[in-house]
Amino acid sequence: MQTMKGVGDKMTLPYGHRMKRLRGWLEANAIDAAIVTMPSSIAYLTGFRSDPMERFLALWIADGGETTLFVPELDALKSEGAIGVDRLVPIPDGKPPLELLRNSCKTEPVCMGIEKDAVSWKLAEELFASWQEAEFVDIGDEIREMRGRKTREEADFAKEAASIADAALEAALTTFIRGMKERELAEEIDRQIRLKGGAGNAFATTVLGGIRSAYPHGETGLHAISEGEFLLVDMGASCHGYLSDMTRTFIVGEGSAEQERMYETVKEANRRAIAAVRPEEPLSSVDKAARSWIDQQGYGSYFPHRVGHGLGVDIHEPPSIHGWNNRPIVQGMLFTIEPGIYVPGIGGVRIEDDLYVNDQGITEQLTGFPKELRRL
Amino acid sequence: MQTMKGVGDKMTLPYGHRMKRLRGWLEANAIDAAIVTMPSSIAYLTGFRSDPMERFLALWIADGGETTLFVPELDALKSEGAIGVDRLVPIPDGKPPLELLRNSCKTEPVCMGIEKDAVSWKLAEELFASWQEAEFVDIGDEIREMRGRKTREEADFAKEAASIADAALEAALTTFIRGMKERELAEEIDRQIRLKGGAGNAFATTVLGGIRSAYPHGETGLHAISEGEFLLVDMGASCHGYLSDMTRTFIVGEGSAEQERMYETVKEANRRAIAAVRPEEPLSSVDKAARSWIDQQGYGSYFPHRVGHGLGVDIHEPPSIHGWNNRPIVQGMLFTIEPGIYVPGIGGVRIEDDLYVNDQGITEQLTGFPKELRRL
Repeated sequence: MQTMKGVGDKMTLPYGHRMKRLRGWLEANAIDAAIVTMPSSIAYLTGFRSDPMERFLALWIADGGETTLFVPELDALKSEGAIGVDRLVPIPDGKPPLELLRNSCKTEPVCMGIEKDAVSWKLAEELFASWQEAEFVDIGDEIREMRGRKTREEADFAKEAASIADAALEAALTTFIRGMKERELAEEIDRQIRLKGGAGNAFATTVLGGIRSAYPHGETGLHAISEGEFLLVDMGASCHGYLSDMTRTFIVGEGSAEQERMYETVKEANRRAIAAVRPEEPLSSVDKAARSWIDQQGYGSYFPHRVGHGLGVDIHEPPSIHGWNNRPIVQGMLFTIEPGIYVPGIGGVRIEDDLYVNDQGITEQLTGFPKELRRL
Repeated sequence: MQTMKGVGDKMTLPYGHRMKRLRGWLEANAIDAAIVTMPSSIAYLTGFRSDPMERFLALWIADGGETTLFVPELDALKSEGAIGVDRLVPIPDGKPPLELLRNSCKTEPVCMGIEKDAVSWKLAEELFASWQEAEFVDIGDEIREMRGRKTREEADFAKEAASIADAALEAALTTFIRGMKERELAEEIDRQIRLKGGAGNAFATTVLGGIRSAYPHGETGLHAISEGEFLLVDMGASCHGYLSDMTRTFIVGEGSAEQERMYETVKEANRRAIAAVRPEEPLSSVDKAARSWIDQQGYGSYFPHRVGHGLGVDIHEPPSIHGWNNRPIVQGMLFTIEPGIYVPGIGGVRIEDDLYVNDQGITEQLTGFPKELRRL
């Protein structure tokens, strides 16, 4: 059977509730009209997912009025299933989108809401020119806040994605042999994600061997993974539109004492960071819990990134968990914990889990793949 | 051997010349300092490629002074090979990037250049606040203009990418059997791209069967491609940092007279559009050449997108070839021609080629895969 492209799981997620909540907030803040332009925010509110690239995609929410989805004409067919959208306006390629937006707006909003981090300066200037009398205010923080508090249902989808990834990695590792290329293992992982029931991977599966694992954002290549090397796998699955994100690191064969020490240091940092996740504590305390341990072990200068990030509909969402984020941990947060040590010429170790702070304030670990040092 | 991640082919491309040309233009326009933030523009100028996601990545070019690359700390190692960069400033996660940028800027620019379509409104406000006395001007058009005029060398890289894709598709089709899943064929194409010498695919290879081909931006799935269906393949290879982009459509078995008529209409539209590529003519004439033919054949309402787009370092670059773009065709342009007809319930046909307008003003077709109707 053919499924409606671009709109998934529309029966299972409370899109109507989300839109109603946003409308209520807009009204309470005297915002007459809002333009949502971040593709993942549009997906969150309507179930319609699309990467418009350089084309214009926007959800127009007017006070008390209808909701209009402005969509590139070539995606009009696949956007038909968008939930809670009263009107679809296809934009032909080359037609100035702001003209269409302006013409379809019957009222003159006094205050317009916009996601300031999802609107380019160029588009902002066009908006100012189109509504010269309006005041523009940022609604990005509020949408992020809504998206950042995951319900039980959302966490269950992320948990399902994490379980699929656990099983896929275990199955893919059974095919590992010395000399296997990074890309071959990555393809096997992707295949297993689908076999285990995932809709696909959450991002390009990363497999790095040997000293290449010392690049935190390295790209999977044709390196043949060999005896004595680190093997780092960063992967996730997608399930009902929610994503998981997990990293595990292995040693091929015995490895060196130094590699083992790096591994055990990261494993303990991961444990300490997870233990530091407590409601009302500042997010920075989680980063510090991992970082201070890594510092003590002498690897402080080899941990060049934050300890974690939120995830959900997007693979990177708020909160950003770094040493300067003193906002409190709250119920509903769903984020990664991923300390790492990267030593040029030796390699890198990262151990990443996904955590959910449930409505009891209890931390649930969604990823289940074992963390004991495993030699392949 | 390990290759430097993130920096490729640094010996073969004239990064120094590009930077010098941009510096000359900035000077001529009395722009004291410029901030380049589009990742592909940074790749074009320095050879360093990175997708920073939500992190801050910028190239700071000061009048007569040094060039500084501000890079997320976790990418510092892989950015070390960036060409023409005098100084690398790693930005630790969570540190406000504008503070670092402001502190590293010794002079007080009177006029600052910025890519207005690659800076968010939020970042723009931070820039205004940091340099309250400066005037800000858009340098995006100039960089696009530079990037839009491809040299012989760049076209040769794109041609190599196109030839790899030609060979990969031909090889992958030999494995096609009825009932094969879209994703299986896409994976075989990706494998062949690498076997033929490509660095990888240019974008996610798209394979759509049957009525699913009626979605211009459909996603490759698990549909089993069956007798009587259209099979649409949209694919490209990456070679020395340059991309190709090609679509071919096939019929599995005999198909219907309607399918054949759709195919031949698109093939003729593709031919007419390519024939309309003549220096000094408006870009719109190319779109019109394809569209008027499709209109005449009664499929006008089933061609919901522009006829083509530029490509090079990015898969979508200027020029945008639609009916309202009256800028002239000039030497050095490299773009796709991709008319299509998409009939819901029947399927879609698209035939896409890459063209280069060389320094003699002659149109070279880079893609070589045959376009005669092929039944599989």
